[in-house]
Amino acid sequence: MTSGLSYLGYHRSAPGGETFTAKTAATGENLPGLFQSASSADVDAAARLAAAAFPSYRDLDGKSRAAFLNQIAANIEELGQTLTDRAMAETGLPEPRIKGETARTCGQLRLFAGMVAEGSWVDARIDEADPARAPLPKPDTRSMLRPVGPVVVFGAANFPLAYSTAGGDTASALAAGCPVIVKAHPGHPGTAGLVAEAIVKAAKSCGLAEGVFSMLYDAGHAVGSRLVSHPCVQAVGFTGSRTGGTALMKLASERPQPIPVYAEMSSVNPVFLLPGALAERAEALATGLAASVTMGVGQFCTSPGLVIVDVASDPEAFAQLLGEKLGAIVPGTMLNSGIRKNYEEKRARLAAHAGVKEILPPAKAAPACGPPALYQTTAFNVLADPLLTEEVFGPCALIVSANGPAEMAGLARALEGQLTATVHAAASDLETQRSLLGILETRAGRVLCAGFPTGLEVNQSIVHGGPFPATSDGRSTSVGGAAIFRFTRQVCWQDTPDALLPPALQSGNPLEIRRTLNGNPAKR
Amino acid sequence: MTSGLSYLGYHRSAPGGETFTAKTAATGENLPGLFQSASSADVDAAARLAAAAFPSYRDLDGKSRAAFLNQIAANIEELGQTLTDRAMAETGLPEPRIKGETARTCGQLRLFAGMVAEGSWVDARIDEADPARAPLPKPDTRSMLRPVGPVVVFGAANFPLAYSTAGGDTASALAAGCPVIVKAHPGHPGTAGLVAEAIVKAAKSCGLAEGVFSMLYDAGHAVGSRLVSHPCVQAVGFTGSRTGGTALMKLASERPQPIPVYAEMSSVNPVFLLPGALAERAEALATGLAASVTMGVGQFCTSPGLVIVDVASDPEAFAQLLGEKLGAIVPGTMLNSGIRKNYEEKRARLAAHAGVKEILPPAKAAPACGPPALYQTTAFNVLADPLLTEEVFGPCALIVSANGPAEMAGLARALEGQLTATVHAAASDLETQRSLLGILETRAGRVLCAGFPTGLEVNQSIVHGGPFPATSDGRSTSVGGAAIFRFTRQVCWQDTPDALLPPALQSGNPLEIRRTLNGNPAKR
Repeated sequence: MTSGLSYLGYHRSAPGGETFTAKTAATGENLPGLFQSASSADVDAAARLAAAAFPSYRDLDGKSRAAFLNQIAANIEELGQTLTDRAMAETGLPEPRIKGETARTCGQLRLFAGMVAEGSWVDARIDEADPARAPLPKPDTRSMLRPVGPVVVFGAANFPLAYSTAGGDTASALAAGCPVIVKAHPGHPGTAGLVAEAIVKAAKSCGLAEGVFSMLYDAGHAVGSRLVSHPCVQAVGFTGSRTGGTALMKLASERPQPIPVYAEMSSVNPVFLLPGALAERAEALATGLAASVTMGVGQFCTSPGLVIVDVASDPEAFAQLLGEKLGAIVPGTMLNSGIRKNYEEKRARLAAHAGVKEILPPAKAAPACGPPALYQTTAFNVLADPLLTEEVFGPCALIVSANGPAEMAGLARALEGQLTATVHAAASDLETQRSLLGILETRAGRVLCAGFPTGLEVNQSIVHGGPFPATSDGRSTSVGGAAIFRFTRQVCWQDTPDALLPPALQSGNPLEIRRTLNGNPAKR
Repeated sequence: MTSGLSYLGYHRSAPGGETFTAKTAATGENLPGLFQSASSADVDAAARLAAAAFPSYRDLDGKSRAAFLNQIAANIEELGQTLTDRAMAETGLPEPRIKGETARTCGQLRLFAGMVAEGSWVDARIDEADPARAPLPKPDTRSMLRPVGPVVVFGAANFPLAYSTAGGDTASALAAGCPVIVKAHPGHPGTAGLVAEAIVKAAKSCGLAEGVFSMLYDAGHAVGSRLVSHPCVQAVGFTGSRTGGTALMKLASERPQPIPVYAEMSSVNPVFLLPGALAERAEALATGLAASVTMGVGQFCTSPGLVIVDVASDPEAFAQLLGEKLGAIVPGTMLNSGIRKNYEEKRARLAAHAGVKEILPPAKAAPACGPPALYQTTAFNVLADPLLTEEVFGPCALIVSANGPAEMAGLARALEGQLTATVHAAASDLETQRSLLGILETRAGRVLCAGFPTGLEVNQSIVHGGPFPATSDGRSTSVGGAAIFRFTRQVCWQDTPDALLPPALQSGNPLEIRRTLNGNPAKR
C-alpha cells in the first residue's frame, strides 16, 4: 500500500496533515492506509514544480510524449489485481466494471499517444510571405495549438480510474503538453495512490522534468480551492456535483487572471419514446432502459433519469412494464454513504411530490445498496416545477406523459443543458422525431436514435459534454480525441526564423503532419 | 441618412427612446441624424426574433449562407463614398484608413463565405458501427461543429467597420450559422446604420428568416447589459475597454445559464529590441516603431506601448532617436473626446510617475488631436509597479531599460496576457531570442520576429487574441478563419438515420467535404 502522503513531483509531502482513511463501500470499515491532507505549502510546491516543468514538457517531441502515455498505460496494467481489489473495496463497484474501466483508462491513454505520435492534431496553419504584395508586403504567419500550462484535475467519485488520477482529463492534458496536478478524490485514495505511482514511475523512466505530474490528497475542499486559485494553474478539469462545479467556476472567474474550468456536473439524459417505437418494441425498450437506469447503480453522468411517453401510448402500461423490469434487478452497492444518503433524499423528495405517482417504491435492501425506483408525472408538472428535472444520482427514473408531439417539443425546449438526449422512433414517428432532434441538438452534446445513453465510445467523434449545467463549457468534450483541444490555445508566429519555430511549423515539415498551407490542405 | 431607430429583424423599433446624435471627431459638432436608444422591449424582441430564426438559419446550406455573406460585402461596397464620408466624420479617421478598413471588412466576409461554401470547416468526424464487436456492439457516432445560437456583438469605438456592425465577430457568427444582434457603438451610429441597412437588405434578398440580424442603438450601457443577460443569447463578442469587458464577463457568468464572452480588452504589445538588432539597424527600428506607435493615432489594440532595450545598447540614445521620430509625426484626430481625455490622463500619470523620465512631451496640438509622447523607465520599476504596464490608449510608448538577458526574461515572465509580443534580434542575439520566444508564446497570441504588431493579416493562420487581460478567453481568435470556432460547439449523433443527419455527416458525403473516418482522414 502507498504511504498516504501527497506526490509532489518525484518527492512526497512532509507528514503532519490531517489524516483520513479509505472505507469499504459495502460496510464502511476502514481499509489499510492512512492518508494525509496536503498543506497549502504542498499546493504551492506542486504548482511551482508544474510551472517549472512546463516549458521542457511542452517542447518535448510528440513521440516522446506518446511513449510517456503508453508507459503510464503499461504501468497501470502491471498493477493487475492489486488495483482491481483496492478499487472494488473503495467504491463497491463490481470486478467486471473495474476491469472494464481500467481497460478504458489505458485505451484512452493509448488513443492520445497515437494522436500525439502522429502529430497532425495541432492544426498547423501556414500562410507564406509575399514581399511583393502591394500596397504592403505580406508577412509570413504560422499558427498551431499549444498547451495552456499546468492543469488541475479533480478525481471523480464515480469513476475511480477513467475520470480520476490517470483519467480522461489527465490523459488529454498530458497529451496536449500540460503538466497535471491531480486532487485525489477522498473516496478512493488508495486507488489514486496506486495510479499515481504508475504515472510517477513512467515520468521517471521517460526522464521527464520533475513536476510534470503531482497528486495531492485532501479529506475536505481546501486543497482543491487553493489549487484552482494558484497563479501557476491555467485550467481545471472536474467531474462531480453541480454545487462543486459551480463553486469552482466562481473561484476561477474571480482570480486576478480568470482561467477555463471544464466541469461536468449534472444531467438527467431525457429519453423520448415515440408512439411508433412503443407500439413496435415496448418490451425491448423497457428491458434496455431498465439496464441503462441501473448500470453502475445509476451512478453514471449519462444515466437516463427522464423518460417521455406520449399519452396516446398508454404511459401507465409502459410504467408498469418498466417498473417490473427495474424491480427484478438486484440492488447494487453505492459508492459511499454520502451518495447513498443523497440518493435517498432526492428519491424521497420525488415520492413526496404532489404531482408525482410512485410506480416502483425502492425495495428493502442492504444499507449500502441503492434499490431502483420509478415515478411518473406529466409534462405539465415538469414545466411547472424545475425540481422535477433535477438530477437524482442513483438508479431512479421519472416517466413523463406528454400530450402529443407539441407537448413533447415544448418539454424538450424547456430542458436545461444535457450530456445526452435519446429519441426512440419508428417509421411512423418521422416528423415528430425530426422536430425533436432539431431541438435536442441545442440541449445536448450527444443525441441518440438507438440504444441508451450509458456506456460511451472513446473515439474521435464522441462528445461527452453539453450546455450548462451538464457542463460548465458546452463547447468542449471530456472524452474522445477532441478532448485534447480543451487544454490548448492557438498561437501565431509572424516572420519567425525556421530554427526558432516549433517543428510542426517549420518549412520542411519535419514531422510530416497534415497542415494548412495558404488556406488549403498541404501536400506532405 | 437612416432614421435613427433600431433594426429589429425587418422592422424598426417604435420611436420614443432617449435620443442622441453623432458628433464629428474633429470639432464635436452634431452630425445629421437623431438616434434613439432601444427599450428593453426592443431587446426582448430582437432576442426572440434571433432565437426564432436560429433553427432555419442553422440548417441553411453552406452555399446559401456564403451567398448571404457575399451579398453583405457587395451591399457595403455599393455604399461607396457615402459610407466613407460618414465614417470619417464620426471617427476622425482619414480616408485611406476608412477605405482600407472597408476593404478588410468585405474581405473578411468573403473569407468566411469561401469557408462555408466549401464546408470542411465543420470538422466532421465519423466512426462507423460494428455490430459484431465483442463484448458490446459498437454504435455509429458522428460529430461536427454546430452554431451555438444567437450572438450579441458590440460595435467597437476604434474600428467603425472591421470590428463593428459587419465586422469580424458578425462575419464569423453569421458564417457559423448564428443569428447576430449588434449593439451599435454610440460613437459612430450613422456608420452603423448604413452597414445595418446593407445587411438587412442582403438578408431580405436572400430570403432569410426575419431575426437573422438586428441592431440596437443605445446612448448608454443598459441595452448591452440587457442583451448579455437575455436567456435567448448564447455568446457575446466585444472589443473595448478592460472595464467594459470584465463587466460583461461578470454579467455572463452570473446568468442562470452562463455563456461564453469573447472580449478583447487591453494589451501593451511589448517590443524587445535585442543588442545585436539595435547595433545593426537602430535607425530603421526607430522609424518602424514610430510609425507603429502612431498608426491610427495609437488607437489600435495592437499598438506597441512597451519597448524593452538592454542597458548595454544605450537605451538613452535609442530613446532620443525614437523621440525625434515620434516628434516629427503630425498629431492625428482621436476618435472622440472621451478617448482623448483618457489618453491625456493616462499619459499624464506616466509623466508624473517618480520612476519615469519624459523623453518626448506631447506637442501642442489642436484640441481633438492626440500628440505622440515617449517615456522611459527601468525593468525594476516596471516590476515594482503594475501601473506602468497598463495600456495607454493613444500614441504613447514607454522605453524600458533592462539589465541584461536575465532581466529581459524576468520582465517577459511578469507580463500579463498580450495580443502580441515582438522580438527584434540579430544573429548574435540567438540565445536571448530563443529564451524570450519560449516565454512570450505563453503571454501572447501572436509573436513577431520582424515588423511591428499593428496591421493584421486576415488569413487562416492569424491569431488575434491572447491570455487575459488581452482577451477574456485566450483560446480564441477574433480575426481570421479560426474565428469561426468561437461561435460553435461539437455535437455528436449516435445511431441516427442518415436522412435525419446534417448533410455534412451523411454517409454519401453529399457536400464532398474533408472528413475524419474511423480516426483517419477520409477520401472524398
